[in-house]
Amino acid sequence: MILHGYFRSTASWRVRIALGLKGLEAVQVAHHLRKGEQRAPAYLALNPQGLLPSLVTDDGAVLTQSLAIIEYLDELAPEPALLPAEPVLKAKVRAVAQAVACDIHPVQNLKVLQRLRELGLGEELVQAWASTTIEEGLDAVDRLLADQPGPFAFGDAPSLADLCIVPQLGNARRFGVELRWPRLLALEAACLELPAFQNAAPGQQPDAE
Amino acid sequence: MILHGYFRSTASWRVRIALGLKGLEAVQVAHHLRKGEQRAPAYLALNPQGLLPSLVTDDGAVLTQSLAIIEYLDELAPEPALLPAEPVLKAKVRAVAQAVACDIHPVQNLKVLQRLRELGLGEELVQAWASTTIEEGLDAVDRLLADQPGPFAFGDAPSLADLCIVPQLGNARRFGVELRWPRLLALEAACLELPAFQNAAPGQQPDAE
Repeated sequence: MILHGYFRSTASWRVRIALGLKGLEAVQVAHHLRKGEQRAPAYLALNPQGLLPSLVTDDGAVLTQSLAIIEYLDELAPEPALLPAEPVLKAKVRAVAQAVACDIHPVQNLKVLQRLRELGLGEELVQAWASTTIEEGLDAVDRLLADQPGPFAFGDAPSLADLCIVPQLGNARRFGVELRWPRLLALEAACLELPAFQNAAPGQQPDAE
Repeated sequence: MILHGYFRSTASWRVRIALGLKGLEAVQVAHHLRKGEQRAPAYLALNPQGLLPSLVTDDGAVLTQSLAIIEYLDELAPEPALLPAEPVLKAKVRAVAQAVACDIHPVQNLKVLQRLRELGLGEELVQAWASTTIEEGLDAVDRLLADQPGPFAFGDAPSLADLCIVPQLGNARRFGVELRWPRLLALEAACLELPAFQNAAPGQQPDAE
C-alpha cells in the first residue's frame, strides 16, 4: 500500500496510527502542504479534493478521507478492532471521531487559515480563529467522554476516537492552546505508551522538518 | 425515537432521508438555529457540541453527528442498505459523504459565517466565502463520482453519499451557487423521485418558515 501524506497533517497522522495498530505496512509518499504540493496536477488526478491523506491499496484502488480509510483498514485487518461491536457505543465512538474530523480540523486547517489571511485578517486574529475552534471543539469532545471509562477514550483499548483526539491535541499545542482537559491528556498518555502512536508522531516521519 | 433538528439544517436533513428510506418513525423536535436555540442549556445537556441533529433512541441513548446516526440506523434497519458490502466501494461511498460532511458543510455553516461577520467582514465577502466553499467542494465530489455509474451517486440505489449530496445542493441554491454539475443534478433528480427524499425536504418540515 502507498500512503500519500504529510508529517504534520493530522488526518494523515490518524491513518498512520491505524496502520501501526494493525501491523500493516505502507510506503509513505510525502506532499508538502505549505508548498502546495497537494495541488499539483499529478496528485489531483489521484485525489480531486487536493487533500491528504490518500491510500492506494495493493490492488491499486485509491481511497480518500481519513475516517473512510481507517474503517477500510479496520475491515481489512479486524484485530485490534477500532470500533466496538455494540451499535450504540459504535455510534458514540464515530461521533467523537467526527466531532474532531468534521467540526474542528476542517475549520482550523491550513486552507481555511490562508483564506482568512487573503481576506486581510491579521496574524493575531487568524491564530485566534484556530485556537478558539480547537478550544470549543475539544471542550465538547471532553464532555462527550464524561460518562466513558478510561484509560482510553472508550474503555480499555484505543478506538477511532483516540486516533482523532491524539493528533488534534498535537495541533492544539502547535497553536498554543492551553490544554485544560485532564481526561483528554490522560487518554493521550495511555495512547503514547503504544508503539503505534509513538511511531506515527509527526517528528518520526521521513519528511519531518 | 426523537430527532432533534431544524428544517434547514443539512445534517438533520440527511438523517430525515435515512429515517424515511428505512421506514422508521421519529418525533421531530425543532431547535431554531438562527435564534440560537441549539445553545440553550437543556439542549447542550443532550448534545455538548450544541449542533444539530441529535437522535434519542427508544432506549434513551443520545446519538450525535449525522453520519454516525445514519450508520446506526443502517445497522438497526439494514434494508435498504445505505452502504455497499464490498470494502473498497464502501470506503468510496463514505469518502464522498465525508467530502461533504467534513470539508464543505462545517466550513460554510451558520456558525462559521457568523464568526466572519463578527470579524468585520462585509456581507458580500461572507456570502462569497460560503459559495466558494460549496463550489470547490462540489467540484471535487463531482470528480470523485466520475467513474461511478448512475443514476444515483453509486449505481442503482441511493447510498450515504446521496444523503449528503442532495441537502448540500439545497444549500448551494440558497447561496446562489451556479449548479454546474450535470452528474450531481441527475442523481438529485433520481433521489427526488423517492418519497423519502421528497418528505425530508426543508419545506416539508413542521418548523419550516
